[in-house]
Amino acid sequence: MTDASMSVPNTGDLSPDEFRAAAHAAVDWIADYLEHPERHPVKSRVQPGDIRRALPASPPPQGETLDAMLDDFHRTILPGITHWNHPSFFAYFANSASYPGILGELLSAGLNANGMLWVTSPAVTELEQVTLDWLRQMMGMSDGWFGQITDTASVSTFYALAAAREAVGLDIRVRGMAAREDLPRLRVYCSEHAHSSIDKAVIALGLGHENLVKIPADEQFRMRPDALETAMAADVALGYRPMAVVPCIGTTSTTSIDPVPAIVRIAKTFGCWVHVDTAYAGPAAIVPELRYILDGVEGADSVVVNPHKWLFTPMDCSVLYTQRPEALKQAFALLPEYLVTKGQDETVNLMDYGIQLGRRFRSLKLWMILRAFGEEGLAERIRFHCELARDFAGMVHYEGGWELTAPVPLSLVCFRYAPKGASEDEIARLNAAIMERVNAGGLAYLSHTKLNGRYTLRLAIGNIRTDRPHIEQAWHELRAAAAAVMAA
Amino acid sequence: MTDASMSVPNTGDLSPDEFRAAAHAAVDWIADYLEHPERHPVKSRVQPGDIRRALPASPPPQGETLDAMLDDFHRTILPGITHWNHPSFFAYFANSASYPGILGELLSAGLNANGMLWVTSPAVTELEQVTLDWLRQMMGMSDGWFGQITDTASVSTFYALAAAREAVGLDIRVRGMAAREDLPRLRVYCSEHAHSSIDKAVIALGLGHENLVKIPADEQFRMRPDALETAMAADVALGYRPMAVVPCIGTTSTTSIDPVPAIVRIAKTFGCWVHVDTAYAGPAAIVPELRYILDGVEGADSVVVNPHKWLFTPMDCSVLYTQRPEALKQAFALLPEYLVTKGQDETVNLMDYGIQLGRRFRSLKLWMILRAFGEEGLAERIRFHCELARDFAGMVHYEGGWELTAPVPLSLVCFRYAPKGASEDEIARLNAAIMERVNAGGLAYLSHTKLNGRYTLRLAIGNIRTDRPHIEQAWHELRAAAAAVMAA
Repeated sequence: MTDASMSVPNTGDLSPDEFRAAAHAAVDWIADYLEHPERHPVKSRVQPGDIRRALPASPPPQGETLDAMLDDFHRTILPGITHWNHPSFFAYFANSASYPGILGELLSAGLNANGMLWVTSPAVTELEQVTLDWLRQMMGMSDGWFGQITDTASVSTFYALAAAREAVGLDIRVRGMAAREDLPRLRVYCSEHAHSSIDKAVIALGLGHENLVKIPADEQFRMRPDALETAMAADVALGYRPMAVVPCIGTTSTTSIDPVPAIVRIAKTFGCWVHVDTAYAGPAAIVPELRYILDGVEGADSVVVNPHKWLFTPMDCSVLYTQRPEALKQAFALLPEYLVTKGQDETVNLMDYGIQLGRRFRSLKLWMILRAFGEEGLAERIRFHCELARDFAGMVHYEGGWELTAPVPLSLVCFRYAPKGASEDEIARLNAAIMERVNAGGLAYLSHTKLNGRYTLRLAIGNIRTDRPHIEQAWHELRAAAAAVMAA
Repeated sequence: MTDASMSVPNTGDLSPDEFRAAAHAAVDWIADYLEHPERHPVKSRVQPGDIRRALPASPPPQGETLDAMLDDFHRTILPGITHWNHPSFFAYFANSASYPGILGELLSAGLNANGMLWVTSPAVTELEQVTLDWLRQMMGMSDGWFGQITDTASVSTFYALAAAREAVGLDIRVRGMAAREDLPRLRVYCSEHAHSSIDKAVIALGLGHENLVKIPADEQFRMRPDALETAMAADVALGYRPMAVVPCIGTTSTTSIDPVPAIVRIAKTFGCWVHVDTAYAGPAAIVPELRYILDGVEGADSVVVNPHKWLFTPMDCSVLYTQRPEALKQAFALLPEYLVTKGQDETVNLMDYGIQLGRRFRSLKLWMILRAFGEEGLAERIRFHCELARDFAGMVHYEGGWELTAPVPLSLVCFRYAPKGASEDEIARLNAAIMERVNAGGLAYLSHTKLNGRYTLRLAIGNIRTDRPHIEQAWHELRAAAAAVMAA
């Protein structure tokens, strides 16, 4: 053992001063970037493999300079970014980073606290609980909801359905589901417009995709309670066991709102867990006149809402609320000796409510956002997005050759170009071409869906930087693209 | 609709200049903090409820000033942090944030890209693939491993076992596990020292906790291949189906290393998936003379390694490698219309390999770390940690009344105070009291475990800032605590 090995090696890592300089430069770059994200094309123009090929195939044996790295960041990585921060990002659902959120993320990265147990950073657990209780109040939900942060809605829903599976009372936790004569098929119900995360949770839990029953929707894309009731009764008649119903408030394709009060009533008749998926739309309940969207949720067992969608929180931050935290613990809690701590029973230990053990300090950014904007500041922005959506819907509605394909209850507009006499196939081809042209132009980015087989464009508004001119520009781009596609 | 509502609201959010000022101040604070994390007690001294009570019970109706928030951060939040960045954090396994990692996290938060599909930010997918291929090479693993980043080892292991379940070939994805006559019990095997994440994955997948078979370990806490073979044969004789074996390289309690080559041979005889849990120890394979720890891994189907443990990467960043990515896709891939994109088949879309859809840009921080340190810089640090552990073990070994309780193959030392003639119960009580006293002192933070019922302290070295004096100080604290406890 040489002397040189006897103190902490210093090659490679930055000095504190180098870190300071680099991080200050990064802050300035981010501030510049966010003042004008529209300098970049919304959708990246690189081709598959471009970035991979631009980077060395092997790692560096020795440390490299920060300059080399940052140079690559700007020259190679940045062109490969599709800019979710761009005010004209209208695809999927928006995901935009507000300043207070970025600040919170920076402080979290510096602290690097891990809240797996209360004791391993009490602030992580307690601030998460306080912040989620604030959000609950902002959304007008009743007392008695226990909140936890997960990374994505897919995981929140997976946890909720895991709790539902255990709540059936057949000790699946210990005995499992295979090779049991006492276990009926367990059935889960959602609308035909439910998100694929429900499918994935059902598959992962070993329930079987064929046991996820997709209930038909009405002409406004909302789950039909009568069809739900019929399906559940038919299942019971076959000896199956209804386990959970997952209504959605704000479906992905159209932001339709399933009739939660009626669904809860039916589900309760069958002794089912109700998990409400309002990952996108939930924050709209902060707006007093939109609070009605959560009607009936007080009868549900769990709810997922994603601050990293419509609450301007940097990825990732999903929230799972439940009125039955004990059911989650029953599904997941496990205490190996190496995680035993004194006084453990007196505190919430968030590792008990899911499979993840490590837990980064994600509540800090959300807490800073709730405080910086306040309830009214958030409501204003969400209200404004809904106004923009109505305005855009108006433009489409009054323009010859274009049509709306779904109601606009929130901030998503479903629409398409449908020139007179065009067949469904032709319309699909035209709109795919229009979308591709607009997206390639770099001034707006949209995505699509199909509604009862009808190809439909989606303009989803939710970015904190989106203003009226961005909507007008998107509309201009769309009409220009339609003209070009028709002329081609 | 009023005119005022016609442009983007500006209450609440920071102005670009306010953001600049606040983020620069945050950078300076982080730099100061990381130069001297030892100014803080390692383990937070707050009591349960202290932080919650110090914060308002309701959210602010209007936005608040940044100063108010940052004041609360320093006054209320910071005392509630247990400092994982503190060089004397020796509990669990270390989790420390290096400067390049924090820089990467800051840039990621600013970009806020979501790599759910290749097209939604090609750089997110391609940099993840390149970076994980670099890490694979650094660890000396063969070609042909597909890597993806998840948040925690628990999720990586859950995905691996989900793939293993599907690879059994009984179409559990579609048909599920309940009410099937053709489905035997599916059995998973791990050592009695395996991490609780294996238990949680087995439970979540609906396999049943009783179908996780804990194989006895030898006197060095390594899974016994003979016992594994016997258990698997006994299960087959009962009509059960061995599904997966999960050896661990670097167990949580002692960092013992299961004999992977022998385990792989046996598992393959039974047609089992082999998932290697090396969440903590994997990076040690970057050190040439420690590369042997991964012997046999080339025969495994999947491996989990956590850069957010021993690679100085801010939380969270776990990596799941697999030689059978198609099995993961078979378990998870699903393509709803709203996620269809042109040319999708020509690119990797990371949403296909797990349940999470949203994916933040986590590879950026890891890429910056691999580049800043280089292979040799990382190897130096890990080697140094192992040297410190051996030195600490030496101090314990030669001190009367103290004993080592496990071998020290890597950077964790298991030890205890065991004065002559003391019973096991007395030793447990004494060491719990010693640990509590040391942890309360604020100068070092340790955790414990039990080995064959014997209470044991753990000193885990892996923090990038840990130097020789911190080890010496911990040893001083421990002996002083032992003296005080004996005198009491």
